[in-house]
Amino acid sequence: MVRIDAERLLRSLADLRSFGAVGNGVVRPTFSDVDMAAREWLRQEMTSAGLDAVIDGVGSVHGRSANTGPALLIGSHSDTQPEGGWLDGAMGVIYAIEVARTLAEDPDTAHLAVDTVAWSDEEGTYTSCLGSRSFVGELPDEDLAVCNPEGESVGEALQRVGLAGVDRVRVDPGRHVGYLEAHIEQGPYLEANEQRIGVVTSIVGIRAMQIEFEGEQNHAGTTPMAMRKDAGVALFEFGVRVRERLTALAGPTSVWTIGNGRLLPGGESIIPGRAWCGLQFRDPSEDVMDAFQAAIVALADEMTAEGPVAVTAELRRTPMAPVAMDDDLRGHLRDAAEATVPGEWVEMPSAAIHDATVLAPHLPCGMIFIPSIGGVSHDFAEDSTDLDIVTGCQVLAAAAASVLSSHR
Amino acid sequence: MVRIDAERLLRSLADLRSFGAVGNGVVRPTFSDVDMAAREWLRQEMTSAGLDAVIDGVGSVHGRSANTGPALLIGSHSDTQPEGGWLDGAMGVIYAIEVARTLAEDPDTAHLAVDTVAWSDEEGTYTSCLGSRSFVGELPDEDLAVCNPEGESVGEALQRVGLAGVDRVRVDPGRHVGYLEAHIEQGPYLEANEQRIGVVTSIVGIRAMQIEFEGEQNHAGTTPMAMRKDAGVALFEFGVRVRERLTALAGPTSVWTIGNGRLLPGGESIIPGRAWCGLQFRDPSEDVMDAFQAAIVALADEMTAEGPVAVTAELRRTPMAPVAMDDDLRGHLRDAAEATVPGEWVEMPSAAIHDATVLAPHLPCGMIFIPSIGGVSHDFAEDSTDLDIVTGCQVLAAAAASVLSSHR
Repeated sequence: MVRIDAERLLRSLADLRSFGAVGNGVVRPTFSDVDMAAREWLRQEMTSAGLDAVIDGVGSVHGRSANTGPALLIGSHSDTQPEGGWLDGAMGVIYAIEVARTLAEDPDTAHLAVDTVAWSDEEGTYTSCLGSRSFVGELPDEDLAVCNPEGESVGEALQRVGLAGVDRVRVDPGRHVGYLEAHIEQGPYLEANEQRIGVVTSIVGIRAMQIEFEGEQNHAGTTPMAMRKDAGVALFEFGVRVRERLTALAGPTSVWTIGNGRLLPGGESIIPGRAWCGLQFRDPSEDVMDAFQAAIVALADEMTAEGPVAVTAELRRTPMAPVAMDDDLRGHLRDAAEATVPGEWVEMPSAAIHDATVLAPHLPCGMIFIPSIGGVSHDFAEDSTDLDIVTGCQVLAAAAASVLSSHR
Repeated sequence: MVRIDAERLLRSLADLRSFGAVGNGVVRPTFSDVDMAAREWLRQEMTSAGLDAVIDGVGSVHGRSANTGPALLIGSHSDTQPEGGWLDGAMGVIYAIEVARTLAEDPDTAHLAVDTVAWSDEEGTYTSCLGSRSFVGELPDEDLAVCNPEGESVGEALQRVGLAGVDRVRVDPGRHVGYLEAHIEQGPYLEANEQRIGVVTSIVGIRAMQIEFEGEQNHAGTTPMAMRKDAGVALFEFGVRVRERLTALAGPTSVWTIGNGRLLPGGESIIPGRAWCGLQFRDPSEDVMDAFQAAIVALADEMTAEGPVAVTAELRRTPMAPVAMDDDLRGHLRDAAEATVPGEWVEMPSAAIHDATVLAPHLPCGMIFIPSIGGVSHDFAEDSTDLDIVTGCQVLAAAAASVLSSHR
């Protein structure tokens, strides 16, 4: 079996971390100076790994193997959340380069073709999964007008960093037999169940709904309670009732969250005339998500009929459907996990979106997770043990060799 | 009985409206250019009414009668809400000038002393009841550092408008026998009960509490429902439960409102780790308000004990106690109302704060209301009929003459 170089892996990860390090975390938002410096460093690392490496027209760093024949694409994203952890995305990118090096150094696998990638803007500083969506041809031109919180559009950013007009790398189904991505779990499941590796079965779907409450704004002193149409009261009532409804319909891994909302106009002495909240839910099953959506709309209609506040519930944007990981790739990942940490791996869905979500309709995809300490992610405190980091890369390298050998 | 000049009253009101008119409403925030222009116009109007008029060191316009002997102070505020109605405050100021003119023109009352006032910043563009608090000596120096939404402090504003260092007019208990204020009701009570005049019995007290919810911020996809400490869920639960508790304790005119709040950090994909809301309540009875406050704190403690989110409830600032209107002044106002609109007046509490709230601990106070169409206030649509406007001023003039005559 191929063997990765654990020291080299951890050193490379530390090197990438230095671009934007803040305490234990990293601030490396897409198209920032540190993000572009990290991408140039990644391009050089891929080159030194023997790959033909470029930063493409949306900022993704692609390393192409000189070997012919069926190739496996391996990678993740190198951008971070506004206050991100050091492993989220970055680890999967460094794994890819280490796997390419490991297979190239082993005479048994040196003929196999591993392409590497560091996707651009998975975290949505501008628009989520920018790099992977461009790669599969699902980046409409209007998305180049989407802006970051400072009001700069993708198109303006590409101009600023000198990538406007540069070729974009596109998926090559004649070459790529699949895509592998390794990631931290970002949740507490593996740690709580004392497992070392998660082999991902599917990535959950996401739907986000906007709930609007339309009442009547009035003076908080002079309007008798019985004459009020308080949109805030309706929002609180909705928040409590929707929880009961969805709990009754939930599957074993369903999650839902009201993460934001507002009472309007928001004055202490003004009865809220309007209110809104955002309700997001995720599940591996479209049926469960259909049932959730129907229950939310039904609750809004019921509350409108009860009065005195009108409630509407609509999808905020196009839903993301659940996507299954490829059966064959899952088999290789299971075998590699069992060979590396016998009995300490488990199959599990991914409750977070990854670039693999975007690629799955176009290429067979496989993913593995390593444990997140305390389940913490999207936070400076995010971390994993060195042992888990090394183990994950070993599993990925073994699986990659196995997949590519099976295609010869 | 003295008789006001209805045409002159309505013309003066229309003149004042022209300072900052926007559609049916008025935008005349304290210390804006139009506010200062309106104050200069009011100073000239008071002068033409035979009064010795000044704009004092906090922007209040004071008109002092040349007559000696017991004087009655009459007025209201001339500033508006950010999007204010045309009568809120302004009407009571124009009433005062019309009453001064009416009494001066009638040989039977020409010897009586009516002082007029247009208070500054009752609406709290900077800090509420600025003018009346200065008048009674309850404006601590630190309040001059309070800023408007644009970040300008009271002190900076006074400098800008040329009032820094100008004398402030102070209450003169040896001269003033009382304060009368007329105002629109700002609520639906008079209209709904087909009454023309409300004689105010008391002004309700107000307490505002800040409720804080402390949970644990986490990823909205990867954190299982059972492991969450969602501060937003606790806020919704609190909103529903506090309503039940306060309903059970409420007096006949109790009101309470959650007018603002926030889920933090407010990301669609982030479980709120913190949340807060503001809960304001008003009642004419301190006992009811004590019971409300105790119930709110008890609910917070209960929810903290139940977990998983810690809830705290604290007063946002010093409570405003309910204040009673003066019995003697109420009697004069009742008699004047009965003489003007027999059987079509009613005694009622004021559910809104007025400058009379600030003055009542220092001077006997009396107030009357006229009906608000549809109960609408703090809105461009705020209005009253010309007939009601004229009737209110006639009641105020008759009461003023009666009060002052009784002191001779």
